[in-house]
Amino acid sequence: MSNGAQALITTLVDSGVRVCFGNPGTSEMHFVAALDSVPQMRGVLCLSEGVVTGAADGYARVTGRPAATLLHLGPGLGNGLANLHNARRAHVPIVNVIGDHATCHKKYDAPLESDIEPLAEWSHGWVRRTESGADVGRDAAEAVAASLSSPARIANLILPADISWDEGAEAAAPITPSSPTGPDPAVVADLAELLRSGQNSVLLVGGPATTARGLAAADRIAAATGARAMVETFPARLTRGAGVPALERIGYLAEQAAFQLDGVENLIVAGTRAPVSFFAYPGKPSDLVPEGATVHHLAGLDTDVVAALEHLADLLGPGTEPRLAPATDVAVPSGELTAQNWVQVIGALLPENAIISDESNTSGILLPTATAGSPRHDVLTLTGGAIGQGLPVAVGAAVAAPDRPVIALQADGSAAYTISALWTMARENLNVTTVLLNNSAYAILKLELSRVGAQAGGPKANDLLDLTRPTMDFAKIAEGFGVPASAATTCEELAAQFAAALAEPGPHLIDARIPALF
Amino acid sequence: MSNGAQALITTLVDSGVRVCFGNPGTSEMHFVAALDSVPQMRGVLCLSEGVVTGAADGYARVTGRPAATLLHLGPGLGNGLANLHNARRAHVPIVNVIGDHATCHKKYDAPLESDIEPLAEWSHGWVRRTESGADVGRDAAEAVAASLSSPARIANLILPADISWDEGAEAAAPITPSSPTGPDPAVVADLAELLRSGQNSVLLVGGPATTARGLAAADRIAAATGARAMVETFPARLTRGAGVPALERIGYLAEQAAFQLDGVENLIVAGTRAPVSFFAYPGKPSDLVPEGATVHHLAGLDTDVVAALEHLADLLGPGTEPRLAPATDVAVPSGELTAQNWVQVIGALLPENAIISDESNTSGILLPTATAGSPRHDVLTLTGGAIGQGLPVAVGAAVAAPDRPVIALQADGSAAYTISALWTMARENLNVTTVLLNNSAYAILKLELSRVGAQAGGPKANDLLDLTRPTMDFAKIAEGFGVPASAATTCEELAAQFAAALAEPGPHLIDARIPALF
Repeated sequence: MSNGAQALITTLVDSGVRVCFGNPGTSEMHFVAALDSVPQMRGVLCLSEGVVTGAADGYARVTGRPAATLLHLGPGLGNGLANLHNARRAHVPIVNVIGDHATCHKKYDAPLESDIEPLAEWSHGWVRRTESGADVGRDAAEAVAASLSSPARIANLILPADISWDEGAEAAAPITPSSPTGPDPAVVADLAELLRSGQNSVLLVGGPATTARGLAAADRIAAATGARAMVETFPARLTRGAGVPALERIGYLAEQAAFQLDGVENLIVAGTRAPVSFFAYPGKPSDLVPEGATVHHLAGLDTDVVAALEHLADLLGPGTEPRLAPATDVAVPSGELTAQNWVQVIGALLPENAIISDESNTSGILLPTATAGSPRHDVLTLTGGAIGQGLPVAVGAAVAAPDRPVIALQADGSAAYTISALWTMARENLNVTTVLLNNSAYAILKLELSRVGAQAGGPKANDLLDLTRPTMDFAKIAEGFGVPASAATTCEELAAQFAAALAEPGPHLIDARIPALF
Repeated sequence: MSNGAQALITTLVDSGVRVCFGNPGTSEMHFVAALDSVPQMRGVLCLSEGVVTGAADGYARVTGRPAATLLHLGPGLGNGLANLHNARRAHVPIVNVIGDHATCHKKYDAPLESDIEPLAEWSHGWVRRTESGADVGRDAAEAVAASLSSPARIANLILPADISWDEGAEAAAPITPSSPTGPDPAVVADLAELLRSGQNSVLLVGGPATTARGLAAADRIAAATGARAMVETFPARLTRGAGVPALERIGYLAEQAAFQLDGVENLIVAGTRAPVSFFAYPGKPSDLVPEGATVHHLAGLDTDVVAALEHLADLLGPGTEPRLAPATDVAVPSGELTAQNWVQVIGALLPENAIISDESNTSGILLPTATAGSPRHDVLTLTGGAIGQGLPVAVGAAVAAPDRPVIALQADGSAAYTISALWTMARENLNVTTVLLNNSAYAILKLELSRVGAQAGGPKANDLLDLTRPTMDFAKIAEGFGVPASAATTCEELAAQFAAALAEPGPHLIDARIPALF
């Protein structure tokens, strides 16, 4: 017999949830108190909800399992929405526990009262308001199972304070999540025939197919048929580097994608969708499938995508081996840092088995090339385009994989959104090395200002894309949040500081001053 | 003839909107470009949307006029929701311009696509999606008029990128907002009779009645009848200090309010509602109106509340003068800073005509007493309880009133939410002196943990309310964002640094290290 909060946390733990990223308020005090009665649940405090939800996203990308979040009422959930948007696009499991006023208090329209349901429904996941203490265990078990649907999604459990504090609740048994559908043999056979036809075909993989097994299967298909295998623009987790098939990613800019897909007759998609332009531009198409090309669907996200790829690979060439990227030695360059050379420093020094949280934006355009032959690593990308993701995702990845070095490659403008993530890195002594690409601009927007055809920016327009006056000193900011920091203006400095940061446990930040690419 | 963005901005300017706080993205590039063609609109860049919306709130509290905001798609609006919640509870006008994908691009479900309407509707204001370039001028004029309804509210204009960029739009003429209803003479007469009865009555004022005119009228009513005049717990803008009637505020804690209202037979509300508990607590009532008391409504927020109060005051005692608080000399205390003495430093040194953005939370409990006889000033409070408001509101207040000293009294935990507001203070060289009350705890939650009856916190629970490990160094953080900063541990240091900050133009931050009150 326990109170609702204890029953909830016990059910979450029994269902495999072991971490709760949280920023609690008064209505969550019983949840907070209950943490001490359930030792298997770790509470990780974050200083704003954008960090909470981004950390849960990063944790899920690395483990495949949901973390819980603890959010305070509608405004707390509101603060977390942007990174939930990214998590939704990453198709990861998350269990949000959203505290609400006690049921009897709702009608008084107290100052913090707001409509929670519309915000919870916004990320197109699972939403439940627990109505009584007798339901809280079952609701928690269902939330975990719902988060682990195929595809995975965000489960939102709205928890009134009185449900937390009332005694008499009981934990519920875990619920087995639904499994993905198996591949459709007829579809696989048809696509095998198509791929044998010799037409110009691209196999585009995404979702769960961008880690080693999926990439190997995709590359075997390419090797057996001459088709090209490619990866979606913003994979949730992309395994790459030496010993992993090196699949080209579809470019962010529509112009790049058009170039990459020029002449394609068949576009076969698995675990992703046919590519569309990130934004619309006057007079340019949104659909990036070349005119005349046909889109074929091997497997959607409700299907076991990797199994479908392996089935197709086995049909096409049972003995075909994937072509693994060779290890290459990149020399550390020298001289002033530029948008071109900083990536080579990373490429040269990237440690084995690293996780890169990549929100380097324009500064990182050349990163994939520079790290292609680095030791095997995983890259977590900005799946939904809502900036402020990189540092929180790094927090979650480091909590998920304490034995792996986590490297946050972080643009300056985006960093400012969720900068307090640094504090959680310090508190939890997380092995995160942040390289802050400080070009003192919303460089992407300077590019976009011209791409959308807007009249060449006048002084007021340019001022809104400029991050000088003042230039942020991220080393000072990091130290203020308790993270040891340094600044680098040359490749030599960046290399020395990066190596030193990796060699020492706990978080570090390097404020890398580089000119903007645009 | 102009494009949609130009027509929109011109209409806003013609309707009296002169500042746009923004954090733009690609879909807003034409809006950004158009700023150069409309010189009367000032663009103020903020590094996250919580700063944008909080600044618009602060601007409106000081001017009574809406600022525009520029927000990027659903996630940008999401980031701004918490401070829009506070603005909604402050009943201020704001015009949100929320950029969306081009109309033709929506169906592709691009990575940043999301449902904007549910988020726009969440703050219970006015929502419009502009459907064509021919409508954009009219929609903008209606948005401004809607924001200036009685009560004022948040107007949300969703602006697809193609509406911005298409040529052929025209600005529209301003629309006169609806006026508040006049006071009901019968209600005023009835309440005058009630107040003459000699029963134990409290007149509780809020909304527009908490600045000098409304307070004067309320105090005249009290002086004429022996009733007590009080102010709502979290006024949007409270004028106080020497020369202003000193009305007691209803306390935040239900226990305080119960003590203040004990024995009251009649509670007359004007521009506010009968008080309710901020949160629910097991076994305690949410409704703070004492048993047996009757609530009477003088004027709601759709009514000219100040006129109603003046009408009532004139009926009760045409010659009665308000009782103005005397100026008092507070000595600067000495010794180590405590939660008790830092407020005396502020009280002693508060400059004439200051604006205080008060998010000092538990550290500021004794602030009203210490500043009661300081020179006249305005206090902007945490109306909706969503933390992270104080620094953004200070930004907006300083933009609104460049000739007045703005003082942000800011708790540490709340500061971390929207800390990049410091950067905008630096960029715009705003006269904001931030006193950062650094007690290294969510002290309010330590109090609340016991108040909600939760089992005495174990180590994990207490850890989630603790902001040591590491203690934030806000002076370093401020310098990193470009704001000159210092730290104070004694009253003498705080006094010297506070006086120096006020004497020098531009922003400053003082990291005041004080023990937590709880």
